[in-house]
Amino acid sequence: MLENSTRTELSSLGEFGLIQLLTTHIKIHHASTNKGVGDDAAVLDYSGKKTVVTTDLLLEGIHFDLSYFPLKHLGYKAIMVNLSDIYAMNATPKQVTVSLGLSSKFSLEAVEEIYAGMLMACNRFEVDLVGGDTSASKQGLVISITALGIADEGDLVYRNGAKVNDLLCVSGDLGGAYMGLQLLEREKKVFLSNPEAQPDLEGKDYIIERQLKPEARRDVIATLKSLGIKPTSMIDVSDGLSSEVMHLCSQSGVGMNIFEDKIPLDPQTYDMARELDLDPTLTALSGGEDYELLFTIDQNDFEKIKNNPDVSIIGHVTEAAEGIHLISKSGNKHALKAQGWKAF
Amino acid sequence: MLENSTRTELSSLGEFGLIQLLTTHIKIHHASTNKGVGDDAAVLDYSGKKTVVTTDLLLEGIHFDLSYFPLKHLGYKAIMVNLSDIYAMNATPKQVTVSLGLSSKFSLEAVEEIYAGMLMACNRFEVDLVGGDTSASKQGLVISITALGIADEGDLVYRNGAKVNDLLCVSGDLGGAYMGLQLLEREKKVFLSNPEAQPDLEGKDYIIERQLKPEARRDVIATLKSLGIKPTSMIDVSDGLSSEVMHLCSQSGVGMNIFEDKIPLDPQTYDMARELDLDPTLTALSGGEDYELLFTIDQNDFEKIKNNPDVSIIGHVTEAAEGIHLISKSGNKHALKAQGWKAF
Repeated sequence: MLENSTRTELSSLGEFGLIQLLTTHIKIHHASTNKGVGDDAAVLDYSGKKTVVTTDLLLEGIHFDLSYFPLKHLGYKAIMVNLSDIYAMNATPKQVTVSLGLSSKFSLEAVEEIYAGMLMACNRFEVDLVGGDTSASKQGLVISITALGIADEGDLVYRNGAKVNDLLCVSGDLGGAYMGLQLLEREKKVFLSNPEAQPDLEGKDYIIERQLKPEARRDVIATLKSLGIKPTSMIDVSDGLSSEVMHLCSQSGVGMNIFEDKIPLDPQTYDMARELDLDPTLTALSGGEDYELLFTIDQNDFEKIKNNPDVSIIGHVTEAAEGIHLISKSGNKHALKAQGWKAF
Repeated sequence: MLENSTRTELSSLGEFGLIQLLTTHIKIHHASTNKGVGDDAAVLDYSGKKTVVTTDLLLEGIHFDLSYFPLKHLGYKAIMVNLSDIYAMNATPKQVTVSLGLSSKFSLEAVEEIYAGMLMACNRFEVDLVGGDTSASKQGLVISITALGIADEGDLVYRNGAKVNDLLCVSGDLGGAYMGLQLLEREKKVFLSNPEAQPDLEGKDYIIERQLKPEARRDVIATLKSLGIKPTSMIDVSDGLSSEVMHLCSQSGVGMNIFEDKIPLDPQTYDMARELDLDPTLTALSGGEDYELLFTIDQNDFEKIKNNPDVSIIGHVTEAAEGIHLISKSGNKHALKAQGWKAF
């Protein structure tokens, strides 16, 4: 997992030694971070803005497989997943707390890799790491992150504001992270059955990066602001388009029509799906982990956004009674089904 | 673990079904909770106060053993551990987020027990549960909680304000939670070797309760306020008196003398230690999980607090060069050693 061949046992450091080492490189970006790590709690000052809070739990064997997930990428992704939720409120992330459960298989060097990835994400997105908890674990790696952000009240976008005739938009493209995962899983199986085999990742760099190094769409939030568009509802795509559409519809009390031929797919996603005998559209509907933004806008904002290369208009909002449908390329109407994990 | 004999598999509910069921009974206490569960993030409004954030990770097999820890108590304790950190800043807890990792051995009824304990704690301490994450786990139960609180800037108490000649105080008594744990571990071993044996818990209710149902010392914070005392430094006792004293000293740049005969021990703690051939003082120094408040006050506040039954004055602050010492009952000086877990 690590190029560095030094191995320092965590048991030689103990809790306080480990925390001290890990927190050395933390850089504070915000005056609103009055006090970061090192006390019973962090102290923050948002001077009258709304505070936005989200949290995510990542567990080894459920959310990631360390046999192909580099630790630094994992740390980076763990932060991104949370920042994405803050952006999906049309808010700005400011602080994160990080809790780690570490089994004895992890050395100090391994933990430093995870932390380096987290701090890289924090520095790139100007977010302060202000606290956390570090614990032994009997069961592999546990990562729990909470992110805090701020927004002016008028800027916040919830899931419940979509209204009939709004346009449904999505940033970037979908399904890539899931295809990257399928590819990595396949190559792992090949490797396990024949350790001499070289991984066949030629021309698949994009989908692998979508899985291993997703980026929260801060840029899209900035674009919408500069275009003078405030979405009527918004959610980030963590569980797949299908689930997220259901959330917007149920919370807004509306229906939706989504047009299959408008769903943005990268050619690598499309090709990988074909290679694996999967319907490419299904990778977008059910794949998840793309961390793109799915949002509705008023029809009057159409002209402002129609030529934006980062955003696709994929459907429109209907009355709730009309239900939630995918209009296939051949023009057939299919009712969308709820997804979400069933991993239990 | 449960009296109720119904067992609903989590797999029959899926993620969204489980979340919907669990969040039904959440009650919102604060106007500052603008939006709780149900969106990408919660929205909070503290109108100009300082925000205080803390987080704790609890892992099965490390922090608790479900063979003797009732699930409802576990949920309650998980919340308390975090509220205790907020009080240790002299702040008021307002909101929590809760993430759960659940393996397939847990039924819906089991998860509802955990949640019931959490909500009981939230309701008693008037704290809003505003979000979280629920995930499958391959490795038993994972609980990650983040608590948010508020305070006026002038009220906050850090670990770094202790000054020479301040008095060192602690609330309640120490070592009980650790003795409760030792007792429960012993009875577990007895049970495993002879399932017919009845547990011998007679006259040990207090130490068991200290382990299974700790209470964050909101009352002590209120008492100090009503007495007009603002501590110069404060920390909660989660790792044992010894560790917490070291933290206050290193962050304040001072030394301390602690008097062994002033350390408050409950008779049940004392007796249990004797029964197990342990030094009773050591249970306080190294035991942990008491969630009492350890704080320093200015000497001028002595008269205000000297007769308070909830607070013991156990030592005083010295120059850093004098070091950190325990003065034994026989008058000998022993240098205190750093503790903290070594569970890796």
